[in-house]
Amino acid sequence: MILVAGAGAGLGQSLLARFERGGFNPVGLGRTRPNKPVGHFHTLDLTDEGAVKSVITQIIAEHGPPRVVIHNTSELVIAPFKDTSLMDYRQTWASMVQSAVLLAKSTMHPMVEAGGGTFIVSGATASLRGGARFSAFASAKFALRGLTQSLAREYQPMGVHVCHAILDGIIDTQNSRDLHGLDPIKMMNPDHIAETYWQLSHQPTSTWTHELDLRPASEGF
Amino acid sequence: MILVAGAGAGLGQSLLARFERGGFNPVGLGRTRPNKPVGHFHTLDLTDEGAVKSVITQIIAEHGPPRVVIHNTSELVIAPFKDTSLMDYRQTWASMVQSAVLLAKSTMHPMVEAGGGTFIVSGATASLRGGARFSAFASAKFALRGLTQSLAREYQPMGVHVCHAILDGIIDTQNSRDLHGLDPIKMMNPDHIAETYWQLSHQPTSTWTHELDLRPASEGF
Amino acid sequence: MILVAGAGAGLGQSLLARFERGGFNPVGLGRTRPNKPVGHFHTLDLTDEGAVKSVITQIIAEHGPPRVVIHNTSELVIAPFKDTSLMDYRQTWASMVQSAVLLAKSTMHPMVEAGGGTFIVSGATASLRGGARFSAFASAKFALRGLTQSLAREYQPMGVHVCHAILDGIIDTQNSRDLHGLDPIKMMNPDHIAETYWQLSHQPTSTWTHELDLRPASEGF
Amino acid sequence: MILVAGAGAGLGQSLLARFERGGFNPVGLGRTRPNKPVGHFHTLDLTDEGAVKSVITQIIAEHGPPRVVIHNTSELVIAPFKDTSLMDYRQTWASMVQSAVLLAKSTMHPMVEAGGGTFIVSGATASLRGGARFSAFASAKFALRGLTQSLAREYQPMGVHVCHAILDGIIDTQNSRDLHGLDPIKMMNPDHIAETYWQLSHQPTSTWTHELDLRPASEGF
Repeated sequence: MILVAGAGAGLGQSLLARFERGGFNPVGLGRTRPNKPVGHFHTLDLTDEGAVKSVITQIIAEHGPPRVVIHNTSELVIAPFKDTSLMDYRQTWASMVQSAVLLAKSTMHPMVEAGGGTFIVSGATASLRGGARFSAFASAKFALRGLTQSLAREYQPMGVHVCHAILDGIIDTQNSRDLHGLDPIKMMNPDHIAETYWQLSHQPTSTWTHELDLRPASEGF
Repeated sequence: MILVAGAGAGLGQSLLARFERGGFNPVGLGRTRPNKPVGHFHTLDLTDEGAVKSVITQIIAEHGPPRVVIHNTSELVIAPFKDTSLMDYRQTWASMVQSAVLLAKSTMHPMVEAGGGTFIVSGATASLRGGARFSAFASAKFALRGLTQSLAREYQPMGVHVCHAILDGIIDTQNSRDLHGLDPIKMMNPDHIAETYWQLSHQPTSTWTHELDLRPASEGF
Repeated sequence: MILVAGAGAGLGQSLLARFERGGFNPVGLGRTRPNKPVGHFHTLDLTDEGAVKSVITQIIAEHGPPRVVIHNTSELVIAPFKDTSLMDYRQTWASMVQSAVLLAKSTMHPMVEAGGGTFIVSGATASLRGGARFSAFASAKFALRGLTQSLAREYQPMGVHVCHAILDGIIDTQNSRDLHGLDPIKMMNPDHIAETYWQLSHQPTSTWTHELDLRPASEGF
Repeated sequence: MILVAGAGAGLGQSLLARFERGGFNPVGLGRTRPNKPVGHFHTLDLTDEGAVKSVITQIIAEHGPPRVVIHNTSELVIAPFKDTSLMDYRQTWASMVQSAVLLAKSTMHPMVEAGGGTFIVSGATASLRGGARFSAFASAKFALRGLTQSLAREYQPMGVHVCHAILDGIIDTQNSRDLHGLDPIKMMNPDHIAETYWQLSHQPTSTWTHELDLRPASEGF
């Protein structure tokens, strides 16, 4: 079973599709149910401690422990510092860090007890660089990276591979085409990202990647 | 005027003393009033949006805008992930990141309008490395570093020098002597850290440091 | 065609074998000819400007331009600074950096003209951290990383994917078994590393990785 | 005594002047003797193993061991990879890395035996980022950073503070005014850099900085 948190659209659905094609039972979690979700989908607020725990407990009771868990929630705020409210900081943090904590709380030990698994977190350029006008988003993405490193150092000796993927570019979805008007060649195809996550979750224990970056060939860095 | 948030003890008091010696009007903020505070001291919860705003507004009305602002709150949690509660993540984040956001909200623009200033944030080893059992602390310290970078890129062109000091070691206070039983030679003298912060806040605009580390000569890294 | 520089043993031969299995024409370069080399093998000193140029020119004349080029030479020196001679610095630099420069000189433009390709460089823990007693090795591995980053920023817009793989652990070869006496489970299987290089060299242009790390599950970091 | 390698102009002379003002005996080394050198000046090729050893041995015999040693040589090459010759790589490496190795060889142990000292190395933006067209320069600056880290980890426990200063901007010299035509406000004043080096070399053992950056307030990063 693969569990994707933040599966309402774009990359989340591509991940579920890729792993389903590879024989996994796909289970998506998110605030908004897609029109035609791949596999199972549970609508929930990923920052709600009680809901996350009860929904994932029920999923595991039904499908067994996950082999792969992917954290893929994002909440972008771009604004000058003076126009970024405390609520913006709280919400970006909750939607990216609190949700990852809750996801890990409900899945790490089931994976350990089942003999191992993979836990992948989606980062961004802002995981490494706090740019002007990105104070809320970068702060939360930095926090998520620190959390992920700590989980890796704690759980890898117990058999769970923990990985931080830095997505350095814009993901090609209908939404980002409408929003950015970028040439698709300058965006990341979500199916291609999903292929990398598939590879990461199949690395043998002799060669685990903790961190990698992904960007379009045309993206400066 | 120098404003130190997290001035209830140790480094906070050393900072106020160093800047007072240099002719600054020292104002400390913190949860717990020291027995004999250096200069002025305001007891408040630095995570309380309303309190921070009203107290700092009143301080500025009385003393004028700060020339130097130092963020020095810390809340250490060391525990395995499974024993770290969501409340631990919220509290470490609030005590270190939310307090920094609120401090900056109340001081950055007064400094900009007054023609410039310095804003220094105290980081830690965990700002750069998420170790096992440090998931809450490292996550919050990473977040604080991302926030600080973003503030630097946004406010330096407006004349406010923003600096992130990585304190890689244990600060020599009575509390840490009781707690760690370390040879004082292996700890950082808070007066020496204060001297560095003094130097940072007096760098000419031609040579601003954004990030430096400080550690005892005997500390491995 | 795949060209591997530093193919005399271990990982180099595993790489050639993996790509041969995938339909590539394997060509190895190195100082010492293996007993039973995979595919073609050319014995040469990879730091010899004239030899590298003439051998690779001849290989390209015969087989066409490479699709994948891998730089995999290493020369480990571990010694206190006072026992590390200037010759040690020169040799580690030449064997790792000069050889990479010469390899890139002979292959980048043929790949650009052929419409693209992949250039992968093998780094190490010491690419990111200069440890005590590793001054020569770390200095050269840092240099190689700087070179690789620069090549990526220059050649990726021309269609050549440039990648730096940080091998954070000991590669499981007969040689390292004899030398370190480590449990094989604590070493990296060269066939598994080769699989990752295979994946990197097949990433679509929408998602190129510039840097990743690889380490055994049991390796601390 | 302070020994500055790369003291023929600009920052080197400013450093000698700052330390002379602070009571140090200033000794400069470099290829080109300035018109009116501050203190003593020895003309030599800093990449010449024999010359460096004999000149510094003689300086120490005359003046005693240095308290502060600064490595400040630089050799900038900016060119596309295809126009950067192997000789460019060798020369940038020799002028920046080989010279630092030779300088450290002749001064570290005299400082250790004299009870301690400070060894500061001047880095650049390219110490952290390998930009397009900077392959030779970045590769050498990365190498120098790796070397410096290793020296820090080896010699700090023996009492020598080793520091890497990242100069992220253009130093304001007559030469750079002629070359770049930049507004001086956008350049780093060498006297201000010298002040920071003075502060670094006087940090007490409880708070040593290994790495810091310096840039003009107006410099993006």
